[in-house]
Amino acid sequence: SIRNLAMEKVAQTVMFPCKYSSSGCMATMSYTEKPEHEETCEFRPYSCPCPGASCKWQGSLERVMPHLNHAHKSITTLQGEDIVFLATDINLPGAVDWVMMQSCFGNHFMLVLEKQEKFDGLQQFFAIVQLIGTRKQAENFAYRLELNGHRRRLSWEATPRSIHEGVAAAIMNSDCLVFDSSIAQLFAENGNLGINVTISMC
Amino acid sequence: SIRNLAMEKVAQTVMFPCKYSSSGCMATMSYTEKPEHEETCEFRPYSCPCPGASCKWQGSLERVMPHLNHAHKSITTLQGEDIVFLATDINLPGAVDWVMMQSCFGNHFMLVLEKQEKFDGLQQFFAIVQLIGTRKQAENFAYRLELNGHRRRLSWEATPRSIHEGVAAAIMNSDCLVFDSSIAQLFAENGNLGINVTISMC
Ligand SMILES: [Zn+2]
Ligand SMILES: [Zn+2]
Ligand SMILES: [Zn+2]
Ligand SMILES: [Zn+2]
Repeated sequence: SIRNLAMEKVAQTVMFPCKYSSSGCMATMSYTEKPEHEETCEFRPYSCPCPGASCKWQGSLERVMPHLNHAHKSITTLQGEDIVFLATDINLPGAVDWVMMQSCFGNHFMLVLEKQEKFDGLQQFFAIVQLIGTRKQAENFAYRLELNGHRRRLSWEATPRSIHEGVAAAIMNSDCLVFDSSIAQLFAENGNLGINVTISMC
Repeated sequence: SIRNLAMEKVAQTVMFPCKYSSSGCMATMSYTEKPEHEETCEFRPYSCPCPGASCKWQGSLERVMPHLNHAHKSITTLQGEDIVFLATDINLPGAVDWVMMQSCFGNHFMLVLEKQEKFDGLQQFFAIVQLIGTRKQAENFAYRLELNGHRRRLSWEATPRSIHEGVAAAIMNSDCLVFDSSIAQLFAENGNLGINVTISMC
């Protein structure tokens, strides 16, 4: 197949609308720029931020909190910048998720703890915070997750993810608080693990 | 085999000397208490604290620093409570150890970073601090290891190990700063990883 350089040149010049134009995006771009823009387009619908793929809900950012309040009533919400995320029965076998909400600074944050066995025989925990908001809004915050035990402390500080990007990629890349089940035992009491969560503005 | 309860009773009552009595230990104990005592007996000879089993040196605590200065000249020493442990070429394949010494509070601490593949396909780093001193002395100190990157910080605080117990068991149990190679990439620059080490008295 011979490359048609003239046609490629034309394709580079022709401007296409974003596929979320019907949702309000006014951006136009060349064909090669489309995938990158659409991946991060602020008009791309939001998916339900609950971990696991069980809920198929999608909608606008404004509809996310009403969706959570309606369809995921069992999720606990705590108020304040500095709270304790208590994960119970962390020794339950298999892949398990713990989720709670934290409200502060007029925003809602979803705290996620996932237990996975990515590697044979190694149970790992991944803890991360995501903002119910855009990526740009998320950059105004920092979070700290802290495990406190007998003469031991493990802590992780980072920028919250936006629920628009989600947490799956961060967990895949270990770009979150990661610890294995032996560490969890050092910090757990009666099979329950308390994670101190502090949100700050930056 | 029928248990001879009378003989067991006698064995419980007879007192034995510690096997390090020739080194100065005056303790006596029942046969069943011997293993536990001898494992932690302060007269047990110290082994060379360098990670890996290549150096077979053993001796008294007072001889450890002279041994290191003589036989392990290449180990860098930094002075101060707050230093940077720079591990170079962390992407080198296979199991690798990085070691340095930190001197402060009139004591010497050995900083160890080990890279291992305990689980197939998962390169993990284990960082830990051990005191050239007894377990009792180690309890007077705390250490913090901190990785700082772009809008991210990972830190671990704990009591230093004594070189009398060594670091192998702590590394085995993940009772140290543990991170995998994806996290290392987040914090490394040009393949070199700086770990902030702070020692404090408590
Ligand atoms: Zn768009
Ligand atoms: Zn949902
Ligand atoms: Zn003894
Ligand atoms: Zn040696």
